[in-house]
Amino acid sequence: MIIQLHEDTTAEQKAGIAATVTSLGYKITEVKTQQGHYMIGTGKKEFDLRTLGHLPGISDIHRVSDDYKLVSRKWKVERTQIDLGDGVVIGKDSLTIMAGPCSIETEKQVEATIDHLIKNGVRIMRGGVFKPRSSPYAFRGLGVEGLKMWHSIARAKGIKIISEVMQVSQIADMYDFVDVFQVGARNTQNFNLLDELGKVDKPVMIKRGISGTIEELLSSAEYVFSGGNERLLLCERGIRTYEKASRNTMDVNAIPILKEKTHLPVIADPSHGVGLREYVEPIALASVIAGADGIIYETHEKPEEAFSDGQQTLDFQESEVMINKLRRVFDLRESF
Amino acid sequence: MIIQLHEDTTAEQKAGIAATVTSLGYKITEVKTQQGHYMIGTGKKEFDLRTLGHLPGISDIHRVSDDYKLVSRKWKVERTQIDLGDGVVIGKDSLTIMAGPCSIETEKQVEATIDHLIKNGVRIMRGGVFKPRSSPYAFRGLGVEGLKMWHSIARAKGIKIISEVMQVSQIADMYDFVDVFQVGARNTQNFNLLDELGKVDKPVMIKRGISGTIEELLSSAEYVFSGGNERLLLCERGIRTYEKASRNTMDVNAIPILKEKTHLPVIADPSHGVGLREYVEPIALASVIAGADGIIYETHEKPEEAFSDGQQTLDFQESEVMINKLRRVFDLRESF
Amino acid sequence: MIIQLHEDTTAEQKAGIAATVTSLGYKITEVKTQQGHYMIGTGKKEFDLRTLGHLPGISDIHRVSDDYKLVSRKWKVERTQIDLGDGVVIGKDSLTIMAGPCSIETEKQVEATIDHLIKNGVRIMRGGVFKPRSSPYAFRGLGVEGLKMWHSIARAKGIKIISEVMQVSQIADMYDFVDVFQVGARNTQNFNLLDELGKVDKPVMIKRGISGTIEELLSSAEYVFSGGNERLLLCERGIRTYEKASRNTMDVNAIPILKEKTHLPVIADPSHGVGLREYVEPIALASVIAGADGIIYETHEKPEEAFSDGQQTLDFQESEVMINKLRRVFDLRESF
Amino acid sequence: MIIQLHEDTTAEQKAGIAATVTSLGYKITEVKTQQGHYMIGTGKKEFDLRTLGHLPGISDIHRVSDDYKLVSRKWKVERTQIDLGDGVVIGKDSLTIMAGPCSIETEKQVEATIDHLIKNGVRIMRGGVFKPRSSPYAFRGLGVEGLKMWHSIARAKGIKIISEVMQVSQIADMYDFVDVFQVGARNTQNFNLLDELGKVDKPVMIKRGISGTIEELLSSAEYVFSGGNERLLLCERGIRTYEKASRNTMDVNAIPILKEKTHLPVIADPSHGVGLREYVEPIALASVIAGADGIIYETHEKPEEAFSDGQQTLDFQESEVMINKLRRVFDLRESF
Repeated sequence: MIIQLHEDTTAEQKAGIAATVTSLGYKITEVKTQQGHYMIGTGKKEFDLRTLGHLPGISDIHRVSDDYKLVSRKWKVERTQIDLGDGVVIGKDSLTIMAGPCSIETEKQVEATIDHLIKNGVRIMRGGVFKPRSSPYAFRGLGVEGLKMWHSIARAKGIKIISEVMQVSQIADMYDFVDVFQVGARNTQNFNLLDELGKVDKPVMIKRGISGTIEELLSSAEYVFSGGNERLLLCERGIRTYEKASRNTMDVNAIPILKEKTHLPVIADPSHGVGLREYVEPIALASVIAGADGIIYETHEKPEEAFSDGQQTLDFQESEVMINKLRRVFDLRESF
Repeated sequence: MIIQLHEDTTAEQKAGIAATVTSLGYKITEVKTQQGHYMIGTGKKEFDLRTLGHLPGISDIHRVSDDYKLVSRKWKVERTQIDLGDGVVIGKDSLTIMAGPCSIETEKQVEATIDHLIKNGVRIMRGGVFKPRSSPYAFRGLGVEGLKMWHSIARAKGIKIISEVMQVSQIADMYDFVDVFQVGARNTQNFNLLDELGKVDKPVMIKRGISGTIEELLSSAEYVFSGGNERLLLCERGIRTYEKASRNTMDVNAIPILKEKTHLPVIADPSHGVGLREYVEPIALASVIAGADGIIYETHEKPEEAFSDGQQTLDFQESEVMINKLRRVFDLRESF
Repeated sequence: MIIQLHEDTTAEQKAGIAATVTSLGYKITEVKTQQGHYMIGTGKKEFDLRTLGHLPGISDIHRVSDDYKLVSRKWKVERTQIDLGDGVVIGKDSLTIMAGPCSIETEKQVEATIDHLIKNGVRIMRGGVFKPRSSPYAFRGLGVEGLKMWHSIARAKGIKIISEVMQVSQIADMYDFVDVFQVGARNTQNFNLLDELGKVDKPVMIKRGISGTIEELLSSAEYVFSGGNERLLLCERGIRTYEKASRNTMDVNAIPILKEKTHLPVIADPSHGVGLREYVEPIALASVIAGADGIIYETHEKPEEAFSDGQQTLDFQESEVMINKLRRVFDLRESF
Repeated sequence: MIIQLHEDTTAEQKAGIAATVTSLGYKITEVKTQQGHYMIGTGKKEFDLRTLGHLPGISDIHRVSDDYKLVSRKWKVERTQIDLGDGVVIGKDSLTIMAGPCSIETEKQVEATIDHLIKNGVRIMRGGVFKPRSSPYAFRGLGVEGLKMWHSIARAKGIKIISEVMQVSQIADMYDFVDVFQVGARNTQNFNLLDELGKVDKPVMIKRGISGTIEELLSSAEYVFSGGNERLLLCERGIRTYEKASRNTMDVNAIPILKEKTHLPVIADPSHGVGLREYVEPIALASVIAGADGIIYETHEKPEEAFSDGQQTLDFQESEVMINKLRRVFDLRESF
């Protein structure tokens, strides 16, 4: 159950509510997000909402009927915007472009990428320093040292950073050097990680699981949100199907579906979504016209020399062409 | 093996080629399509191409290394255009819109639909008279009588007809009353039907199987093409995945993939593709920006009263709004 | 709606029922199967069962609430047995083994196979004479002539024949030479073919579609059953999933599920089900312990020389070993 | 690259090997597992094996050509057995049964379950104390306190414990109270967790991902193995497909495939695999005849009152019947 409190609910009132809810067999957690103040009761029992409704300090009270609730548009109709500072805002009436290499490799690579982004008016750079790799023998990324190097260059040029966090202990290590934490497709249901990210005051982008349903993605977002962090992005990145002509099947359908179900910004990752360079642009354009609030994709000065994911990475010329088309498609969509 | 003949190859030369090919253990079929003249040899054995190359009357000779060959862009780079007459042309530099009800129901319904199409400059009407239904107890369509009624109204107003053919015997029954034969998703690998449609001189649109691969769709097209009918359209209509938030998963990725692999026009069916009315428009727009040569979708004056597929059918107002957006998206794509 | 008639319902009574049902807006079909006599009304309208219940000649009357009804165990609890004559009976308390090559190739091959079957007490031989092939350039089978050759050898040795029918016109061609018609995985939803097989007085085995659901398989069976042919076998033959370590994913789960839902015999095809020779035996054994009434698989004297499907075909020695194990597993299951 | 050392390779020799390998651009890790001693070099570069082969102290050296190597039967033909002590041994010539509730709930529940297991000669109890739940509002398990309670009862009765670990920090918390760590289907690719479990001297059972491939499962095992822990079990627990008649599709095919590819014991989880109580027994039997080394399933005194997964949980009577059948099927398999 989700108990919405008044802005001026007193500590005493909260204690009273907690006592009553606990006596009903629920475990209670108080959650103060950036935009509201709740008490969340978890437990198995059914109860009569009227038992609580009369308590002082309660603004509203809801049963959790679906697996996701706080992230639902039924709960909040207005679309969420996420402000990264320095004029970088994601969601609602804007198209966000995030680009960069699969893996952070060298200073030179970071600088070349940032020059490319700045030239094209892109403000957010993606890149991995902890790489989830199927094989234990593959390159696993530069780690925190690589992140620090990247951060120092990016900060100087006004570029924001989004990077994947793979485990709880990395949250603290990465905190000072990222602007958005990314939860990868293999960790969409790493509930401990989601719980911890709920306590962080930086935005989080959650990727859909490799074979995750849309509902599971929303439930994962609910984990973070109900933990106290409302600044969330959801990312469609392709699902696993029987089709072998593409590496994954980008589920473009998920974009309008998510936009209808949640107030959170929806980002599309065409690089992983389709997995082959020659189809990244059409799928990116399709995602924007279908309603995406942003695109995240892989670009590298020399894709054929990239440490990983070269076959789905655009070179800077392809990237520039695509950015221009993305903006024209977005403008057309906005004109509708 | 595909043996391409000269325009002026004589009967005698052909007999000579046939005799040699047959003696190599192949079965030979002569195919004269609208644009070329071939002899197609099928069989198991490997042989030396040079055994044949010297024979008079042969323009070129190819091993069939992939399952599809004649439909491949490696065989023919230039995109195929299909002319239905009266100024209705599909493919290459044009956006084709085909719309209409799932099932043809009544004269009144046909007339209302045609008025809606004409008002919006749409020249091709879709509709089913033989309905493939999972249950033997469901409505199976009006049959040929319904088709005749539809045809007489449509012809008078200059509207072309596309309708599904389900079995060989229906080809002759339908021939005089359709402009394009449609092969449904359950018949993509009905090879006898494909063989027969190869002998017909009307265009055929083949839908991808419900769980068919892109390669299987191309192979099915090769059946018809190698049978003598080059006037083919391919249609992406959604695939079966584990995701339950949409009825099917429209594989938008298939559109640029097909456009790269084949010279045939590619049509998108967002109605079946996503299967829920509220997402038909964004998926249709996504399909066009991703490269589709046309859109086929379901529209009905009163979707809630339609005999079938009401939940994925647009009303005329939604249809009109979408048509306008489709054209603007297409114009933007053409401007790239 | 399904109206069950009495054995002695008169023509006059039937006319009366038909008139009433037609006046309610239904189309009526009379069906006389091997075990019962029905009138089946199809149409869209809802109506009050009591309108009909009082008419003379009606034994019982049912709404069709699921897509399948006559094939359901709710309709008939007792398991169906199918008698092919000469002591060959399929289903209920027996394990049926059907084996043979993918394609019928030569007299010599047929004779060797039959010798192998007889030596091992197997009474039914499988083999294809019309081969559905993805590519139009692949071997398509020997056709009716091959079937006649096969039949004349098999009949002399007391072996029954199961073979695939691909289109309506082949039913008559094959009728005199097969004991069981097989509907292949690509034709599970070829409704015209199913309709026609409903009128035939020989058993039919329907394979599950390559990506067909269990419910769709039952609905396809309902087509044939409601057309008048109750002698049906259902066959699980592997489904399409994302897993690439096997060619298909044999859905062993479908076996107990089908056994619970329908009274028809359930056959397992491990050759196509898993698609790799080394796993055919364990999957066959698993299917029997899970409840299958029979196994159909591919065997060939020299699999490496087979015209098709060699990689999933057992040689005669492997086949003999498996047959012995299958029978021991079946005996154990029966002892439970 | 995997460098196998001699038993008596000296520290000096190892330093020499490490220096050379590092100079080739590789990162080196020394791994001492229960049965061997290796140095594992990870990096991107190609090199000439002969550069190293002559160094003293090296027994053998291998390129890592597949993603998994140490877990492959190409590396070690003999099947791995895992000894839990007190006469409880998993793998090779034995059938291991592990049973218990989805969630540990109460002392009474634990005692009743253990009585049931002992009565039926089962030595390992399963149960969850940390529950991965899609919804943040669902019951998440009793945590370490529940585990301690369970452990104290089980230890007294000679019952071994297998329980799921969800994150790195829980390894230490659980260490003293479990006999086998289980990695759940949502954590199959939680590489940090796998890395840490490689350092633990207790066995680990890794479940296949909900939509994981067989190859990914083997790669995940390689993570743990290459980290130093060879005592691994692999568990097939059903995959996600389009079929809706079962909750998951138990991939029985994976059992013989895994048995061929790896020397590690293969366990089947029919409870999650098919997800519906009435089909658990046939799928469990199918898994054993197909080659499984063990079965893990859910049983509860009163499934309808279980905190979670009641619909796939057997009651004790069903459990007892199944155990007897499992052993008879295993005996038959062993007799082949």
